[in-house]
Amino acid sequence: MSERRYTLTISCPDRVGIIAAVSNFVATHKGWIVEASYHTDQETQRFFMRQEILADSLPFDMAGFRAQFSSLAGEFDMDWRISDSAQKKRIVILVSKQDHCLNDLLHRWRSGELLVDIPCVISNHGDLRGFVEWHGIPFHHIDFANKAAAYENISALFEQHDGDTMVLARFMQIVPPSLCQRYPGRIINIHHSFLPSFVGAKPYHQAYQRGVKLIGATCHYVTEELDAGPIIEQDTVRIDHGDSVDDMVRYGRDIEKNVLARGLRYHVEGRVLVCGNKTIVFR
Amino acid sequence: MSERRYTLTISCPDRVGIIAAVSNFVATHKGWIVEASYHTDQETQRFFMRQEILADSLPFDMAGFRAQFSSLAGEFDMDWRISDSAQKKRIVILVSKQDHCLNDLLHRWRSGELLVDIPCVISNHGDLRGFVEWHGIPFHHIDFANKAAAYENISALFEQHDGDTMVLARFMQIVPPSLCQRYPGRIINIHHSFLPSFVGAKPYHQAYQRGVKLIGATCHYVTEELDAGPIIEQDTVRIDHGDSVDDMVRYGRDIEKNVLARGLRYHVEGRVLVCGNKTIVFR
Amino acid sequence: MSERRYTLTISCPDRVGIIAAVSNFVATHKGWIVEASYHTDQETQRFFMRQEILADSLPFDMAGFRAQFSSLAGEFDMDWRISDSAQKKRIVILVSKQDHCLNDLLHRWRSGELLVDIPCVISNHGDLRGFVEWHGIPFHHIDFANKAAAYENISALFEQHDGDTMVLARFMQIVPPSLCQRYPGRIINIHHSFLPSFVGAKPYHQAYQRGVKLIGATCHYVTEELDAGPIIEQDTVRIDHGDSVDDMVRYGRDIEKNVLARGLRYHVEGRVLVCGNKTIVFR
Amino acid sequence: MSERRYTLTISCPDRVGIIAAVSNFVATHKGWIVEASYHTDQETQRFFMRQEILADSLPFDMAGFRAQFSSLAGEFDMDWRISDSAQKKRIVILVSKQDHCLNDLLHRWRSGELLVDIPCVISNHGDLRGFVEWHGIPFHHIDFANKAAAYENISALFEQHDGDTMVLARFMQIVPPSLCQRYPGRIINIHHSFLPSFVGAKPYHQAYQRGVKLIGATCHYVTEELDAGPIIEQDTVRIDHGDSVDDMVRYGRDIEKNVLARGLRYHVEGRVLVCGNKTIVFR
Repeated sequence: MSERRYTLTISCPDRVGIIAAVSNFVATHKGWIVEASYHTDQETQRFFMRQEILADSLPFDMAGFRAQFSSLAGEFDMDWRISDSAQKKRIVILVSKQDHCLNDLLHRWRSGELLVDIPCVISNHGDLRGFVEWHGIPFHHIDFANKAAAYENISALFEQHDGDTMVLARFMQIVPPSLCQRYPGRIINIHHSFLPSFVGAKPYHQAYQRGVKLIGATCHYVTEELDAGPIIEQDTVRIDHGDSVDDMVRYGRDIEKNVLARGLRYHVEGRVLVCGNKTIVFR
Repeated sequence: MSERRYTLTISCPDRVGIIAAVSNFVATHKGWIVEASYHTDQETQRFFMRQEILADSLPFDMAGFRAQFSSLAGEFDMDWRISDSAQKKRIVILVSKQDHCLNDLLHRWRSGELLVDIPCVISNHGDLRGFVEWHGIPFHHIDFANKAAAYENISALFEQHDGDTMVLARFMQIVPPSLCQRYPGRIINIHHSFLPSFVGAKPYHQAYQRGVKLIGATCHYVTEELDAGPIIEQDTVRIDHGDSVDDMVRYGRDIEKNVLARGLRYHVEGRVLVCGNKTIVFR
Repeated sequence: MSERRYTLTISCPDRVGIIAAVSNFVATHKGWIVEASYHTDQETQRFFMRQEILADSLPFDMAGFRAQFSSLAGEFDMDWRISDSAQKKRIVILVSKQDHCLNDLLHRWRSGELLVDIPCVISNHGDLRGFVEWHGIPFHHIDFANKAAAYENISALFEQHDGDTMVLARFMQIVPPSLCQRYPGRIINIHHSFLPSFVGAKPYHQAYQRGVKLIGATCHYVTEELDAGPIIEQDTVRIDHGDSVDDMVRYGRDIEKNVLARGLRYHVEGRVLVCGNKTIVFR
Repeated sequence: MSERRYTLTISCPDRVGIIAAVSNFVATHKGWIVEASYHTDQETQRFFMRQEILADSLPFDMAGFRAQFSSLAGEFDMDWRISDSAQKKRIVILVSKQDHCLNDLLHRWRSGELLVDIPCVISNHGDLRGFVEWHGIPFHHIDFANKAAAYENISALFEQHDGDTMVLARFMQIVPPSLCQRYPGRIINIHHSFLPSFVGAKPYHQAYQRGVKLIGATCHYVTEELDAGPIIEQDTVRIDHGDSVDDMVRYGRDIEKNVLARGLRYHVEGRVLVCGNKTIVFR
């Protein structure tokens, strides 16, 4: 955890020799691989991999890595990316009034478990200003009377704060298509149902009406189609006939925050690779 | 477990004094209550209860109980039922070619865990005859060339064998509305998804396409609308991007058989009370 | 949830007619029972029950209830207790430096999910003062140079703040026998293993050494014998060979806080009845 | 699943270049890697890997592979093994009277899910002869009046049937040290508790006495110390105060058979590598 690492993620058409070529490249430069994961998607015959390499074991920095690796990458027609654990991702959190996910994320951040920067929190309500500012994090209350203007505002704040990822931590607003298109794979939502069941509003009410015996939560990338983006993480919890909608909401908060925290962690550590409308998560 | 018990299940409009009236009735006759469960449905304000009473602690048999209890039942406008643990329910199992649920149910039956009679097994294929008959259970292979005739046949066999409940143990056929109407709350299906997600055919393929991170199974009463009847029991299991549809099918078999076994057990022990399209399960 | 309720808990030698007698008493006074649970411990043949009654449906207050109920209670040789949902339990939280459980409990409290008063937080370190005081809750930093004096101090603060229950939210100190004896069933601990495995210090290190495939957490009442008191709630989470002790600690935090929150909730709502070294938890 | 595969497992001291060297070897011979997993044990700094390679993509058979690979293996001081999915492992099952695990394993075997040969089943009782023989599998009833002779007998049968692995499917007998030493990593047991809790006899009774809120099962390699060998797989299930020892036994059967089936599958597919008293399981 503590040593500085480069994380290399690659996707390319599958063929013989990819692992060998990449491992050779790393070994030739005396790189120490501490974690390595591979997957081939059967439908697309596309190969995905992720390696964590000790930064200090390599003789070059990220720019040097990029320069050296590019010809090999070209040869295999790779989509690839390298990131440095020393450069924290910048996470902008959007919330409404419910604060269980926010409280959870901020605790993980201030205890050093979630290794990100949080340049600001944005909300359509002012309620959570005090709690956020106690953490020394700027809080922006956006007026939603004009939704289009509000989203322009959010977008501007995200750019201004140099955000990498937007996290909808029970934001309870439908993000417009323009924003989704602008930041593909960079907006993460927590939906309070086990998708694809109970899309849209009031999923716990829907679950109550259907009489399901477990409820769930889903962390996913936001795309134009509501609650239909690539799923990163999900979980469920058992309920029974004695549980009211209020009870479900209460149980649900615990899975929502845990599922969001896990999904965000995978994303931040570069463990999530998108393949069509699905994700590969190299845990 | 071993002592003979009467199981009394009641539903009626909620009001003050129901528990007292019933408990009084039982206590007056020196009945020993070994299990008691209550629930009020908030939407319908209907009260549901279930009591298990040691049969030998009461001075009368079931007919006597019915005679004595009926005036109290009338007073509270009760739907009620009493059953005797000594009279085993008669379960007719319908299967196709996949036998994991059948194998599981027959083992629970022959080991004495599932206290039912299994007068026969019915199938649209002959494959499982040998295994069923090894248990000394009659096996009926029904020709499905003419579906209407096939279901007439099934219905006739069910009546002739004096069946209480029909269990579709991966029967893989859509039961016609007429049969559903004829046996409400008496046909149990195991569906290989976490309903309401992935209704209908090939749910594991649907799950694979959607990229969910858990798959599930649902045990429910069969109604006219496909896979939409009251849910008795559900469960989920974690999968990941490395799991093919075949892997899901394999994981799925384990939850399917466990969910069906639990759901059937609840049904057989009179623990399931239907309330609209939902169930109360007094575990 | 919102209506005021009396919660009646009873234990007594099992015999015919207890439910009838209690239900009669309640019904005679027009009491509206909204939740009722029963259990007989087979080893001791002791009967346990819990009823929630709408306070406004009864013609008397708690003192009146006590006066009216006492003769019936005597007749059945009952240990019994009645509590009023309008009188919140007073919970004193003890912490060390790790704050994930504290953060979780304080969020549940300030969001109105955990209906208790928290008169103060006590710690052997000063680190969490700022966070606690931001909630408007007094924070007492106790010097542990002299342990005996420290526990005298804690005991005095608990009395002075009129505490009902002491919660060791990862307090990481062994409470002396004198304190355990003084507050039986009133000190709750969260232990970071699935007891009885890995009693004592560094349970995650013990789990790592043993090579278990799941780790857990246990919420229990504190007794004189270390980590051996009646268990209220437990849970486990899957790990694998790739998880270091640090990873286990991280996963562990999530189960610890959830298990403590659930256990404390059961305790506060009067759902936990102690029977020897075991608990009955009427969820 | 269906294509023939070679599975290569390796452990050796960790250093730079192992993955590269092995991947190069495979790529040079046009080998198509379909699954690859790596792990470094932090305590021993030992490296473990497993690769599945399509057999037909390589220009040589297993003997050829061994001949070609040995110099590289020597260079890195590897413990290594290669197996062929076309050569099924031979599993000898030992049972007593309880047959839930046996029933489960035989079903997985006859449905083609568990790809092994079962040359015989051995028991200290005759009860399960009929069921085993219905499968066309020889059944040996061993007299346990003289235990030493009985184990000599078992050992002889195992050799005679050319067994690879002995599975104690609720065999309920303590295997003598001599047998454990003779077949290290080749005897698999299912213990009906979540080890290290409740070692030895009657674990469900122990669990009942301790008042735990979950029970579990553990699949492990058998070593001389009772229930202390390397753990392959575990799971738990929730119980509550209402569950008797008999109920625990019933719930337990379901986790026992699932945990054993998963553990055995991992073992058979060469996914389990032993590291001291722990296992690496490349799922």
